Amino acid sequence: MGIRLGELVERFGGQLMGDASIEVSAIAPLDRAGVTDISFLSNSKLRALAAQSHAAALILAPADDAEVAATYEGARIVTPNPYAYFARAAQYFVAARGGAPEPGVHPTAVVHHSAQVDPSAHIGAHVTVEAGAVIKAGAVIDPGCYIGREAVVGEDTHFFANVTFHARCVIGVRGILHSGAVIGGDGFGFAVDDGAYIKIPQTGRVVMGDDVDIGSNTTVDRGALDDTVIEDGVKLDNQIQIGHNCRIGAHTAMAGCVGVAGSAKIGKHCTFGGAAMINGHIEIVDNVHITAATMVPNSITEPGRYTGYFPVARNAEWERNAVLLRNLTTMREKIRALEKAIKALSAEK
Amino acid sequence: MGIRLGELVERFGGQLMGDASIEVSAIAPLDRAGVTDISFLSNSKLRALAAQSHAAALILAPADDAEVAATYEGARIVTPNPYAYFARAAQYFVAARGGAPEPGVHPTAVVHHSAQVDPSAHIGAHVTVEAGAVIKAGAVIDPGCYIGREAVVGEDTHFFANVTFHARCVIGVRGILHSGAVIGGDGFGFAVDDGAYIKIPQTGRVVMGDDVDIGSNTTVDRGALDDTVIEDGVKLDNQIQIGHNCRIGAHTAMAGCVGVAGSAKIGKHCTFGGAAMINGHIEIVDNVHITAATMVPNSITEPGRYTGYFPVARNAEWERNAVLLRNLTTMREKIRALEKAIKALSAEK
Amino acid sequence: MGIRLGELVERFGGQLMGDASIEVSAIAPLDRAGVTDISFLSNSKLRALAAQSHAAALILAPADDAEVAATYEGARIVTPNPYAYFARAAQYFVAARGGAPEPGVHPTAVVHHSAQVDPSAHIGAHVTVEAGAVIKAGAVIDPGCYIGREAVVGEDTHFFANVTFHARCVIGVRGILHSGAVIGGDGFGFAVDDGAYIKIPQTGRVVMGDDVDIGSNTTVDRGALDDTVIEDGVKLDNQIQIGHNCRIGAHTAMAGCVGVAGSAKIGKHCTFGGAAMINGHIEIVDNVHITAATMVPNSITEPGRYTGYFPVARNAEWERNAVLLRNLTTMREKIRALEKAIKALSAEK
Repeated sequence: MGIRLGELVERFGGQLMGDASIEVSAIAPLDRAGVTDISFLSNSKLRALAAQSHAAALILAPADDAEVAATYEGARIVTPNPYAYFARAAQYFVAARGGAPEPGVHPTAVVHHSAQVDPSAHIGAHVTVEAGAVIKAGAVIDPGCYIGREAVVGEDTHFFANVTFHARCVIGVRGILHSGAVIGGDGFGFAVDDGAYIKIPQTGRVVMGDDVDIGSNTTVDRGALDDTVIEDGVKLDNQIQIGHNCRIGAHTAMAGCVGVAGSAKIGKHCTFGGAAMINGHIEIVDNVHITAATMVPNSITEPGRYTGYFPVARNAEWERNAVLLRNLTTMREKIRALEKAIKALSAEK
Repeated sequence: MGIRLGELVERFGGQLMGDASIEVSAIAPLDRAGVTDISFLSNSKLRALAAQSHAAALILAPADDAEVAATYEGARIVTPNPYAYFARAAQYFVAARGGAPEPGVHPTAVVHHSAQVDPSAHIGAHVTVEAGAVIKAGAVIDPGCYIGREAVVGEDTHFFANVTFHARCVIGVRGILHSGAVIGGDGFGFAVDDGAYIKIPQTGRVVMGDDVDIGSNTTVDRGALDDTVIEDGVKLDNQIQIGHNCRIGAHTAMAGCVGVAGSAKIGKHCTFGGAAMINGHIEIVDNVHITAATMVPNSITEPGRYTGYFPVARNAEWERNAVLLRNLTTMREKIRALEKAIKALSAEK
Repeated sequence: MGIRLGELVERFGGQLMGDASIEVSAIAPLDRAGVTDISFLSNSKLRALAAQSHAAALILAPADDAEVAATYEGARIVTPNPYAYFARAAQYFVAARGGAPEPGVHPTAVVHHSAQVDPSAHIGAHVTVEAGAVIKAGAVIDPGCYIGREAVVGEDTHFFANVTFHARCVIGVRGILHSGAVIGGDGFGFAVDDGAYIKIPQTGRVVMGDDVDIGSNTTVDRGALDDTVIEDGVKLDNQIQIGHNCRIGAHTAMAGCVGVAGSAKIGKHCTFGGAAMINGHIEIVDNVHITAATMVPNSITEPGRYTGYFPVARNAEWERNAVLLRNLTTMREKIRALEKAIKALSAEK
């Protein structure tokens, strides 16, 4: 199950300095890599550690190569982005270990006769696939998942166990939905009549692009009339809530527990720290970075990093500051009074 | 599958201005409605758009009727609350499209012989219904749901796929539980002994009224000895946590990611913005509105809107303000010193 | 199904004052306990209520015994920690009521032939147990659960319905996982290449100790290379997110909606209020207590209580304070100008 360095470079690029016939069988961090492993240097501060690595080969950046090569005797693969190279190589080693499920439909799965399941797809135990759903080539649907009517699951997309993917929703190729994710639940839309809420049917879909990852127990609601859209390459961590009619721009990433209220439009290449909360009906442009635990009530029109959480302190200190915070108006009045008094004193002279 | 305007008015009220025999087949927003659609004007600012609509008929308020009728040639249904009318009409059109599941129990469902399932109810694939549970007329239990012992599901209540509804919990009529919701998990109750936690059995129930909606992956814990109570018409969005022994008053609505700690009592007709956090053992009176991302540590005894989150800013600005916030004590001291100095200077003259 | 007081004291300790042959059949709060019940006094303020209780017996602390015994005529069990005694006795009464599931594998469960299920374990309907998994003696796996390859479930551990426990994860004895919990989903790890995210395979595990409780819909991610570790006696409430490579110290408890970002190391005997948010790659020492809704960006090296949330206020007041908060720099400048002016005035004299 090893791979020759020559083949690795053919697959993933990089300049090989050393013997192409050397075979490596796993990827490991610098301090643990043994003589059959390949390792990587993604942080120049660790050059010294890399230089002493026992790894058969190292993936590293051009800027680090000279210093490391001075003492390190293994092979080197020089590449501008060693961390991304590591990620791709690690994916290769995991896939090579095997364990991918066999194509076919488990006998306990309930697949409607009008659903189209590609013969190369895998449908696990206790799965339900409703009428008209389409499961494309290489897709893997683990046990306990639910696929609604006319939903579409793209090529090589993987649903972990117990995912719920509702009617007419769509996901592209190479997606990953983790367990407990619920895609296409009804959006939270009501008319108020005489103090009671009247449900507005939610008839839009959730439409997800390619290479989308959705974390465990994350929820994405279907649109009211239009669709909720998750663009290509979006990565959502666990426990996230995306409201109806949102649009999340391509290659935007959100850490766990983020909430995005309905109809928010988020740009591309944004990042959101954990538990950031985004108001509904606002727009955030591309390349905006929101710090964890920050509430964003209004649109953001300029790229950059934005923050807004109360600084933590020892409880007693926080209490003092909290009281003063509530008395800022008084402080301002006192400053005004002082300014007036000074002015009067100065004039008197 | 269309409906004559006359029939629509018979069902939902309103004053029809125009030909009762006109048939409409769907409801659509003003800018998209075609000649077989009915549309609605719920915002007076859109009067001009309404006046030019291609819809066969419009639902609108008395205050808007004269201006719209001056140019709009279709039929009109005049009603005090066009948005609520829209919601009800939209529900009608969705139901008319059909697709409701057939009554009966799917062969893969496991229903205990002592459970009572009404013949008009639907039990989907891979569902488990435990001993003594009661599923009433017209209820729909989608695939993968779990209904615990002696739980009661009211008439026409709908559980989407993969809902967990634990033993002895009760929900009334016309409820909707979305996928991944967990109702009746154990409350978080422990005694501390010698630094370790001893679990206190949670023997209460969750009791939900009529017309309750619970969002995807929302959790409501059972009471410790008494019940957790969700009153009629409560609407909870996704990813909400309701602790044990809480009571949520009728027609209160909570947006996604809200947390309510144990034994909190929330009034009727309240609203909670996303990720609002409510402390345990407090009371909030009727008609209180909590802004998103606001922490409520103490009881609220007066109706109104309450807010408490740190304003977001560019990160550098936030850092400056955060430092100053921690130095408010120093600022107060400086102001006091200034006041003293001014007093001294004034006295000297 | 009753128990004699003598037997109770044999099981759980305490000093019995009264007739050991008295039989009690349930435990109830002071104000509700009847003549066949045992009750408990865990709060000295309720001494008067205890003294009048109709309970057949009372569990109480030495400090309360004299005053209560003066008027209360039932038996007493005197113990230093009546609340913990109550918890243990309540567990006894719940267990005595029966209802524990029969050992064995439900015919609809899908258990791989290479999995090891102890004959005393219970595997419910629609469960999937993958290859090489181990389910130990007395474990109870409720309907709809998923147990991944080579996962290990310890003795007497209970998974409620619809738990997902992924490949190679481990949990010790007497654990409780509530419905919708997802243990061992992939951690959120990516390399960035040319603006897109490349997934880093997550090959570590989640390893949980003994007596661990995990709440409904809580998620704990597997480690990237190393394991995510949840030590003995940890109690996590609902809707919590624990990122990859975290370590949560023994007997630490977290309330609902808490988020802990990847690689955070949390000490022992800590507590976290609801929706506390912990940054990644930080360390928190033992005996730290974080207030609800508090964001912790940096390591905490001293035990104690820490807080950081914006105080809630009526919306109008909050708006005023929020504006002033953003103008703290201006206030500081004004104070400096005043100090300068005072100095000048004083010098002039």
